[in-house]
Amino acid sequence: MDVAIVGGTHLTIRGERLGIVDDGALGITDGTITYVGPANALDEAAADRVVDAEGCAVTPGLVDAHAHTSLALLRGTAQDVPEIEWMRRTLGPFAAAMDDEDRVVGCRLGVLEAVASGVTTICEYASDVSTLVEEVYGPLGVRVVATETVNEVATGHIGDTGDPDDTGDPDDTGDPDDPDDTGDPDDPYPLDTSKGDEAVERAESLFDAYADAPLVEPAFGPQALDMVHPDRLEHLHERAGERDAKLHVHVAQGEREARQVAARYGGRSTVEVLEELGVVDDRLVAAHLHGASPDERRRLADAGVAMVGCPSSIAAIDGIVPPVVEYREAGGTVGLGTDQAPGPGGHDLPRELRTAALLSKTDAGDPTAFPAWSALRAGTVGGAAALGLDVGRLAVGAPADVAVFEPGVGAAPFLREPIHTAVPNLVYGAPRARDVLVAGAFVVRNGSFVDADPAGAVVAAVDRASDVLSAAEGDWRDAGSALVDAVDDGWL
Amino acid sequence: MDVAIVGGTHLTIRGERLGIVDDGALGITDGTITYVGPANALDEAAADRVVDAEGCAVTPGLVDAHAHTSLALLRGTAQDVPEIEWMRRTLGPFAAAMDDEDRVVGCRLGVLEAVASGVTTICEYASDVSTLVEEVYGPLGVRVVATETVNEVATGHIGDTGDPDDTGDPDDTGDPDDPDDTGDPDDPYPLDTSKGDEAVERAESLFDAYADAPLVEPAFGPQALDMVHPDRLEHLHERAGERDAKLHVHVAQGEREARQVAARYGGRSTVEVLEELGVVDDRLVAAHLHGASPDERRRLADAGVAMVGCPSSIAAIDGIVPPVVEYREAGGTVGLGTDQAPGPGGHDLPRELRTAALLSKTDAGDPTAFPAWSALRAGTVGGAAALGLDVGRLAVGAPADVAVFEPGVGAAPFLREPIHTAVPNLVYGAPRARDVLVAGAFVVRNGSFVDADPAGAVVAAVDRASDVLSAAEGDWRDAGSALVDAVDDGWL
Repeated sequence: MDVAIVGGTHLTIRGERLGIVDDGALGITDGTITYVGPANALDEAAADRVVDAEGCAVTPGLVDAHAHTSLALLRGTAQDVPEIEWMRRTLGPFAAAMDDEDRVVGCRLGVLEAVASGVTTICEYASDVSTLVEEVYGPLGVRVVATETVNEVATGHIGDTGDPDDTGDPDDTGDPDDPDDTGDPDDPYPLDTSKGDEAVERAESLFDAYADAPLVEPAFGPQALDMVHPDRLEHLHERAGERDAKLHVHVAQGEREARQVAARYGGRSTVEVLEELGVVDDRLVAAHLHGASPDERRRLADAGVAMVGCPSSIAAIDGIVPPVVEYREAGGTVGLGTDQAPGPGGHDLPRELRTAALLSKTDAGDPTAFPAWSALRAGTVGGAAALGLDVGRLAVGAPADVAVFEPGVGAAPFLREPIHTAVPNLVYGAPRARDVLVAGAFVVRNGSFVDADPAGAVVAAVDRASDVLSAAEGDWRDAGSALVDAVDDGWL
Repeated sequence: MDVAIVGGTHLTIRGERLGIVDDGALGITDGTITYVGPANALDEAAADRVVDAEGCAVTPGLVDAHAHTSLALLRGTAQDVPEIEWMRRTLGPFAAAMDDEDRVVGCRLGVLEAVASGVTTICEYASDVSTLVEEVYGPLGVRVVATETVNEVATGHIGDTGDPDDTGDPDDTGDPDDPDDTGDPDDPYPLDTSKGDEAVERAESLFDAYADAPLVEPAFGPQALDMVHPDRLEHLHERAGERDAKLHVHVAQGEREARQVAARYGGRSTVEVLEELGVVDDRLVAAHLHGASPDERRRLADAGVAMVGCPSSIAAIDGIVPPVVEYREAGGTVGLGTDQAPGPGGHDLPRELRTAALLSKTDAGDPTAFPAWSALRAGTVGGAAALGLDVGRLAVGAPADVAVFEPGVGAAPFLREPIHTAVPNLVYGAPRARDVLVAGAFVVRNGSFVDADPAGAVVAAVDRASDVLSAAEGDWRDAGSALVDAVDDGWL
């Protein structure tokens, strides 16, 4: 046995509940969990290394089921603006100025934030995702669902970050009532097949490149129904079946997508078209879904489609609460994601559980909505199930992705009787992880990264972001936005 | 000059905006700010101690304008239940089992959490608040608005924590439609004048005891209109005027208060009665206000009443978003508070700013609602103005209450041009403070408490809380609640 984690409250997330074991222990051998149970039945002496988790909570590593971490480089450049301005007029001009190394530096910042919070798996949704895998995930030893973005909207017509509200026309404010708006949101964007071909080639190559990489799981990422040809979507769905991979799509993100889809498909909705294309099944991972109807969401849940909700992001960008409670009640699988740092703030998943719970309660006007235990399941086994991975629970034979949380002054006390207070206190107290292991290897130990330099990552990010913002400042000012106004008004 | 804090982005919160100074510096002498301005105009060599804040954000210490920190001992024992059960059937039985030392241990836990997050002033609302001042605030050197709770509801009729939904009848479920409900929410609770007299005596004695204590500001805390005699409220308002102190009242907390007030005052609302009693002016600090009408809130704002919103608490307990945006738009002074740890989670104020912003956006369906800069003002000068203190800004002559935030991987990058990203990144990234000074004295230095033992505070809290929960378990089970059911169902 390589590692034994001994003592504390183990939230194994096995079974239908949280699988709580008091005075628990984990045994780990060759990256796999080989013992789960009471500490007094484990022979500690047989372990090369013993982690004392007395007084702590031990959980599966958390799963961030939808993230664009490169954008962490631009944290603070896009928030507090009308939804219609968020991509085109605030984030877009800066994102367009990022090069490959900028994206790597941003990704490193975001992934380090995630891992420090207890995350061990990130679904990274990006164009040229293999660069991020090679430069960040691989060296850090963090599990990644490498999802190559496939977006066929002709270059110049939509940002690479893929905002459905961006028609690509620099004069298009996106507001149909704006007299200066020369774009027509009901006119389908032109699509460029060769762009899609190249992206699919990159996506396919991931499966060969990482066939033997235990921490990398490739997936297909046709960005959204309005951004790819229907036959592209059908083809990728078929390939996902052949590859036994997931098809991860932004679904029903809002008004502009709805109008584009209506224009392209004779007035039908995104979900209706996806159903007709035959891609609605348990391979499909649907991010967001706030633009679908309750009946459509029920149909997706019935068909086995997994939903990923990103509460901070959708709250900050759209002023909307993702329908995670409704989707769970419909029997659907729900994971949680952090989306991107500019807008909501970052990739801290315990904080996202807290945010999901509070937003769900106020949205429903019901303090019992999305209780702590549902949040913990969504942030572990829910996200893992959505992504098709056998992580998110502590079970013999599963990969040893583990987080150990010390309560600290912000989450104490962790008690056993009559309530396991670690359950609500992990969610509402949202402490950072003390130890994080991926496949049995320590990534964080005693609150410090084992083999990463967070201070250096910050310095690099400041340096790179300064250059990006300088280079793009003119375009950003020309685009005009509430954020430019706020800066000019002396607010920030 | 005792201390110079040199470099970084200084958010001084002077003037109408955030008073941003790039490459700023602070000079501190005898606990008072003696220099605010560019670093290159300060003679560092004249300082006994120089703090390097290069790359950091320097802000006024944050102000938690409404907190019951003793309840941090019970963190995790009351959440995810219907509002009507929160106090009576979940928190209440445990709170009733706490003794003075339990309250001190809980307070220490909560105050340490607050200070680690960058808070330098807490409005502590408690019965026998001087014990907390003596045992916790004084030794830690944290500024406190010591607000003695005055509650005249006859003992046995309402919890000391003062939930307006608690009629004190153990068989009263609080649900008027419940056939087993023997209590009548429209029957005024009996009031006990002698209980009020004792509390007022404690309140008055604070002013003498702390007349020369620069970190202690006493205030009067008549708990709520339905919990004191009207002449008590008038008297305390008069005393507040004579003492130049604040009158801090829970106002319009919800349905039960509204019905009690209607029964007692001929069908009138809380705000109407407060107006008739003549206590609506700039001495009044009104916590919550979600049960008032928009017109009533406008009237309060016009009269100079300050509002304190507690977003996490009211979201978690009631499923309601506090009307902070509306109150600001009406021209009212708004501070933010954390209320208590069981329910929302804790006393981390940067996180509360984030929560306030996201909840306000989804409540309004408007991503521009409560932008980062408004949150920062509410968390600093807004709270200070509400409490009548000259803190919450970095200005020459003001007390040197200061927080220094290093961005870390969760809030970087802090940039200068073209956007001061520290503004959104402090709010949405919500980092912990690296250094915290109160009246020029370090309470936190380089991420560690100077003269406090957080690990010991956690151990003490676990120990004390275990005993309290054991002692009260029977009463808690007998009360019955959704949380008891969840425990019995194996969820936590």
